[in-house]
Amino acid sequence: MRDNPVWTRWRNHEPVISAWLGIDSSYLAEIVASLDFDAVVVDLQHGMLDIGTAVAMFQAISAHRPAPLARVPANEPGIIMKLLDAGAYGIICPLVNTRADCARFVHACRYAPVGGRSYGPARGFLYGGADYFEHANATVLTLAMIETGEALQNLEGIVSVDGLDAIFIGPNDLSISLGYGPGAEFQEPALEEAIARILAASQSAGRRVGIFCASGENARRRIQQGFDMVIPANDTFHLKSAYGAALAAARG
Amino acid sequence: MRDNPVWTRWRNHEPVISAWLGIDSSYLAEIVASLDFDAVVVDLQHGMLDIGTAVAMFQAISAHRPAPLARVPANEPGIIMKLLDAGAYGIICPLVNTRADCARFVHACRYAPVGGRSYGPARGFLYGGADYFEHANATVLTLAMIETGEALQNLEGIVSVDGLDAIFIGPNDLSISLGYGPGAEFQEPALEEAIARILAASQSAGRRVGIFCASGENARRRIQQGFDMVIPANDTFHLKSAYGAALAAARG
Amino acid sequence: MRDNPVWTRWRNHEPVISAWLGIDSSYLAEIVASLDFDAVVVDLQHGMLDIGTAVAMFQAISAHRPAPLARVPANEPGIIMKLLDAGAYGIICPLVNTRADCARFVHACRYAPVGGRSYGPARGFLYGGADYFEHANATVLTLAMIETGEALQNLEGIVSVDGLDAIFIGPNDLSISLGYGPGAEFQEPALEEAIARILAASQSAGRRVGIFCASGENARRRIQQGFDMVIPANDTFHLKSAYGAALAAARG
Amino acid sequence: MRDNPVWTRWRNHEPVISAWLGIDSSYLAEIVASLDFDAVVVDLQHGMLDIGTAVAMFQAISAHRPAPLARVPANEPGIIMKLLDAGAYGIICPLVNTRADCARFVHACRYAPVGGRSYGPARGFLYGGADYFEHANATVLTLAMIETGEALQNLEGIVSVDGLDAIFIGPNDLSISLGYGPGAEFQEPALEEAIARILAASQSAGRRVGIFCASGENARRRIQQGFDMVIPANDTFHLKSAYGAALAAARG
Amino acid sequence: MRDNPVWTRWRNHEPVISAWLGIDSSYLAEIVASLDFDAVVVDLQHGMLDIGTAVAMFQAISAHRPAPLARVPANEPGIIMKLLDAGAYGIICPLVNTRADCARFVHACRYAPVGGRSYGPARGFLYGGADYFEHANATVLTLAMIETGEALQNLEGIVSVDGLDAIFIGPNDLSISLGYGPGAEFQEPALEEAIARILAASQSAGRRVGIFCASGENARRRIQQGFDMVIPANDTFHLKSAYGAALAAARG
Amino acid sequence: MRDNPVWTRWRNHEPVISAWLGIDSSYLAEIVASLDFDAVVVDLQHGMLDIGTAVAMFQAISAHRPAPLARVPANEPGIIMKLLDAGAYGIICPLVNTRADCARFVHACRYAPVGGRSYGPARGFLYGGADYFEHANATVLTLAMIETGEALQNLEGIVSVDGLDAIFIGPNDLSISLGYGPGAEFQEPALEEAIARILAASQSAGRRVGIFCASGENARRRIQQGFDMVIPANDTFHLKSAYGAALAAARG
Repeated sequence: MRDNPVWTRWRNHEPVISAWLGIDSSYLAEIVASLDFDAVVVDLQHGMLDIGTAVAMFQAISAHRPAPLARVPANEPGIIMKLLDAGAYGIICPLVNTRADCARFVHACRYAPVGGRSYGPARGFLYGGADYFEHANATVLTLAMIETGEALQNLEGIVSVDGLDAIFIGPNDLSISLGYGPGAEFQEPALEEAIARILAASQSAGRRVGIFCASGENARRRIQQGFDMVIPANDTFHLKSAYGAALAAARG
Repeated sequence: MRDNPVWTRWRNHEPVISAWLGIDSSYLAEIVASLDFDAVVVDLQHGMLDIGTAVAMFQAISAHRPAPLARVPANEPGIIMKLLDAGAYGIICPLVNTRADCARFVHACRYAPVGGRSYGPARGFLYGGADYFEHANATVLTLAMIETGEALQNLEGIVSVDGLDAIFIGPNDLSISLGYGPGAEFQEPALEEAIARILAASQSAGRRVGIFCASGENARRRIQQGFDMVIPANDTFHLKSAYGAALAAARG
Repeated sequence: MRDNPVWTRWRNHEPVISAWLGIDSSYLAEIVASLDFDAVVVDLQHGMLDIGTAVAMFQAISAHRPAPLARVPANEPGIIMKLLDAGAYGIICPLVNTRADCARFVHACRYAPVGGRSYGPARGFLYGGADYFEHANATVLTLAMIETGEALQNLEGIVSVDGLDAIFIGPNDLSISLGYGPGAEFQEPALEEAIARILAASQSAGRRVGIFCASGENARRRIQQGFDMVIPANDTFHLKSAYGAALAAARG
Repeated sequence: MRDNPVWTRWRNHEPVISAWLGIDSSYLAEIVASLDFDAVVVDLQHGMLDIGTAVAMFQAISAHRPAPLARVPANEPGIIMKLLDAGAYGIICPLVNTRADCARFVHACRYAPVGGRSYGPARGFLYGGADYFEHANATVLTLAMIETGEALQNLEGIVSVDGLDAIFIGPNDLSISLGYGPGAEFQEPALEEAIARILAASQSAGRRVGIFCASGENARRRIQQGFDMVIPANDTFHLKSAYGAALAAARG
Repeated sequence: MRDNPVWTRWRNHEPVISAWLGIDSSYLAEIVASLDFDAVVVDLQHGMLDIGTAVAMFQAISAHRPAPLARVPANEPGIIMKLLDAGAYGIICPLVNTRADCARFVHACRYAPVGGRSYGPARGFLYGGADYFEHANATVLTLAMIETGEALQNLEGIVSVDGLDAIFIGPNDLSISLGYGPGAEFQEPALEEAIARILAASQSAGRRVGIFCASGENARRRIQQGFDMVIPANDTFHLKSAYGAALAAARG
Repeated sequence: MRDNPVWTRWRNHEPVISAWLGIDSSYLAEIVASLDFDAVVVDLQHGMLDIGTAVAMFQAISAHRPAPLARVPANEPGIIMKLLDAGAYGIICPLVNTRADCARFVHACRYAPVGGRSYGPARGFLYGGADYFEHANATVLTLAMIETGEALQNLEGIVSVDGLDAIFIGPNDLSISLGYGPGAEFQEPALEEAIARILAASQSAGRRVGIFCASGENARRRIQQGFDMVIPANDTFHLKSAYGAALAAARG
């Protein structure tokens, strides 16, 4: 089975840097995949795209090195299994608030006897290889999002679920849930404290920890804090800021 | 009929700054249209998109100020008329090498008695308004690309065609045709001389002149040279450069 | 944030008249949005369209006055949040049969601290504006469908849920659930009695009430009965009846 | 090979009444095909749809009686042959202005030895049957549009081209070309005179004659004048008029 | 209402042979539907297709004899009702592990008073006919998949649910759940024993039984064992094996 | 620039065996590309697919070894250049009947100074590499189809055009043009004689020769005759024959 570059980095004790896509274009996905990222997350939650487009984006990523990951819109087995079948090498699941949520999520991602993922030799076999079934449980990543006050209270239960590989932090939703607005990253001490607590508890339990960041610089800071995976903002952000700057330069 | 912001700028003797899109996503088009450009060119020649996607992109642009323009893949009346029907407020036609090419292009863009555009109350009427037919000939822009040595030889004939609004320069193709490689903008004196000659001859004949530029800074220089319309690079370029920079910053 | 024309009508004590679309075409959506409706409902339950098409339809509606609303196929947070992110200014949720159903529905539609909607600056920000997050909870409509005998029994509990804006009646399903066939609108006294009871109980609890109607004339009658929102049939109905009539006229 | 209901009507000396679709939805096509029309024209010229959508529309029409026809955007063999391969049972070609235009059009529609259509057992064989090749030349309709003053002058040459089945009149373009605006149908004596001349000359030469009409009533009048094929307006017109009327009825 | 060819076979005590499609193409669906199958299953679970594509595939199947069936990705009422509205004449539901799972599934497929399916006169009426509502409960098939050890333990409860028409066996998942790998069909006695037990218990309870098979020959064996419905492998399998064989023949 | 496996074979004096796709699915393209072919032809002439789908198919092929080729619907520079921009590593052009046809075709495929292909750093650069422009003229294949009696008469002129790499024979169209029906491959001596003459004349002029074949066995025979490229039938043929055979086996 084709290696998962995320696992390769982690086995080498190196941080993973991943792109994040919310725009519905397989050509854009191919452009970004040609850069030197370790992974590309196709965001089916807040991205303006659905399953059909995600499959096309996975296809466009396949000729390049980054691992195709997906964030699902909700903790539902139907869409989780479908995206795995389509070749996703990892699932980021939003709003994992309890240990039961986390167990349900992991169960959908793993073949028996570990979980209850249904078997179908679909696109995953074309991307991963003919031995996909034997290695999928060890290759495919499970990342549970902690992004609410409720999840913070259930932190230890969540991180202890068997088969969970990593925790992923959504700073904006966590900040809103804690009573601050979005965009509070590196601003609100209470938010940073919560983030630090998640990082410590997860790594103690043997889980890697990823986090969405507002910029490349912030991603660098997170790596220096010990994070295992960072997202230096998304496609929309970079497109708007770069094109807006070019417009301003042209206007003079 | 809804105003064409390009004409508004030109009547005020101000330069037009336009975005340029080759990625097949109406959401991306909407994001870019929300910036402060005067126009958005949907590129059906080198862009990875076709008529159906172009229509969706025009729809996504419609709630915003920039004028929807299209570059067609070839000087063929079928696709030119279709994109005008779909609401394009201007057509950029590649490879106009002779006066006859230019006349054929303009003929497809204008209703009788000026030209031979076929009448159909399609999406253009939803975007432009119920009085579209009365004002279309005066509102819709015709931009002929001069990008070959052959076109340079026929320059005076091309710019004198009735109903032509503007010349658009493709520096890369022009450079290749003159024997230099792509990316020679502001590098090759002979190329710059040819560009200057096109600018002068076109403006003498009463035509505006637009040009594709490799960056916002280059676009500013072209405005200072007297160009009426500039394109500070395209979506792919800005996405790659900004996301690549963020990745580098994250890597540290 | 851009105003919601539905709220504007209701604040002025005027009824809302909305279109209803089940055909999968953004061009059709744009044609209908150019008429003088207050809102356009994109029906993802019984309409032959899915999330990707719904986004394109919202884009096509955006340059026009009517508010984009969506009916979801089921009371699932994943699709509810996705359509809100895509710019829906209101969600109609089918088969709300209990107070718990209603609470779950409203929770998915509201940001914390009112609910648990996840934050992502997606298309809603392009349509609504940069201050979307601050005003979304007060702008976005929640409409719970009462269309079963079970819901009738739980009426008071349903209408008392905090954050619910309106009740929406599906007369055909309600009629079937009560033991009559579809098409019983204004025919079955027991059905009309149930409708009247929903209207009264909902308005007493401070909720507006909307209803699907078989024609413009029936919609007028519902307004006269005090309804706050009416749907004068859907796209399929009008297309078939008008085109069928033209065919008959041509046949003579 | 499956019969062409248009030929059946014509062999019975009955007029053909056809629907006309410019909205990009296979579901809408299926709804309209379920009505009692003899044919459904998928309009790739002024319709907001392209080849891919046209194929889906043909598929949706196939379970119903009306013949699938297509209007092409231009007199180009590539798209004509593609739509025939996709199962179109007739092609309406716009802007046939000369005898040479007409010959070129017919040549693309007919297999050798009559013409130069390329052979490929594509969707046409699924729709028409395994004996498609043997009967296609006799089943598939060729309709040349006369809609300019130039075409009027070349009328006799156009109608005499071998393999041409019918002339189709576009009254709006013809009116514009003659110096009147669109919408002059049954208003301008000179336009009506030209229409009558085309009808007479075409039928003398053994060609049927079709015409686009603004309503079912106008279509009836054209039948009474002797036309062989009428179009009682298109999908957009009927959708807007019926839904607009329902809105007005609801407003009261 | 149009007959369901599956019921026709079963009423005649004949086995049903169905195609199975996981490739996202309505043209491929049309090609396969033109063969002599009794049904065509559109697989939304392991197939690389989503709701929008499934609707297009149903449209393409409609002109041919086989019944359009769908396998859903999960036991969720939203997607089950949507596919029925789109014209599916039967639903195959994966991972039915308990009697409650089965009851929930059947409830979503049947109109009141039997179940809670929502009423909407959508594409099902175009395909089935105007009397769809009256006959749908008796025409539309419900097939529950038994494919886990847990389901085996709950077998009697599952097969006794009112309104269930058939059981469908997924041999690969069942084999994995029982501790064998995929591809154990006709190899593992314990697996065959479980299959035989499901067949006997289901038929005793008055349910038909279908099964996925690895080839036409295996399908024949299953018919001889008494199965009511067989699937002689899927589109991907046949495409790969036939095209691979042709390649080998060409290489020599 | 990524190598073209077709050139690699030819430089090694080995025949090329290519798949041929007319079904509109990127997933099917990926399945076929995972087999051991040297190339995959995406057929935009008789295939039921258009430019947008072709791009998605190219993306799906990219992670696999076979070269992506395209057959265009007509000898038009717009679509030829677009498919090259999209990453096609070769163009098969139908109906090349004269030397002028051939020169026009080659001109569209080559950058200056050899031809007039327009420069745009689109998907071709992602697939081929950053040095695409320098090597494209030597890497991208031009294949002109000889398939009419007229082309036979102009054979020497056609094969002598500079920049032409290969001739491709369409036996069905050639047979029809010579007065025989389709399917005459290896049946009609006159057809075989014409094919042999094309083979000899082309190879004498230094051009490779490819041919479409009805089966793997026929492809083998053509290789033995000296052909440089063979197509062992297309996706539709193999899908129908294999699935039909499985159905027959199941029926017993």
